[in-house]
Amino acid sequence: MNETVTEDEHVTLINAFIVPVGKEAEAVKFWDKAADFMRGQPGYVSTALHQSILPDAKYMLINVAQWESVDAFKAASKALGTESGIKPLEGLVPNPSLYKVIRAD
Amino acid sequence: MNETVTEDEHVTLINAFIVPVGKEAEAVKFWDKAADFMRGQPGYVSTALHQSILPDAKYMLINVAQWESVDAFKAASKALGTESGIKPLEGLVPNPSLYKVIRAD
Repeated sequence: MNETVTEDEHVTLINAFIVPVGKEAEAVKFWDKAADFMRGQPGYVSTALHQSILPDAKYMLINVAQWESVDAFKAASKALGTESGIKPLEGLVPNPSLYKVIRAD
Repeated sequence: MNETVTEDEHVTLINAFIVPVGKEAEAVKFWDKAADFMRGQPGYVSTALHQSILPDAKYMLINVAQWESVDAFKAASKALGTESGIKPLEGLVPNPSLYKVIRAD
């Protein structure tokens, strides 16, 4: 197994969303709008939105995205809030953090 | 963007660990032992353990693993508890759930 696999500046954003019951479709629509905006930001690499197949998961949606650097992600997040014009979805609670892969096979 | 990307039975396990402060290295060692066991179980595909680069993340470790089916993962999880002989690490709180990727680029 590779011990530390990503030495470069790339980081992985993992954002676990608490989704209000009954707002799953709305949450995905909101995410699509935000993803369209983020995709245009410098340093964006890729994303994968995961939806729980279990109805009682704490986090019904989890986004796992790749960014070229911490700074690129931080700038894009700021712009999402100040320039995108996308209004947050009430009750949708994001839990974003940045990660490095330390084990992979 | 691909709407629904995985039609087959594959599922993604996302397991967000709450790690007691000061037990980060122990948690990774515990995870390594569990991963060695799980890797030998039927239906295992791949795994990537993510470590937060931010010191105050709610989940300092998040595992994202691929399994051939829900049943394969459930059987392996049961075996981890009943056959592996690996004792849980005190204070390490897993939050596993199973997901499908619904958006990817």
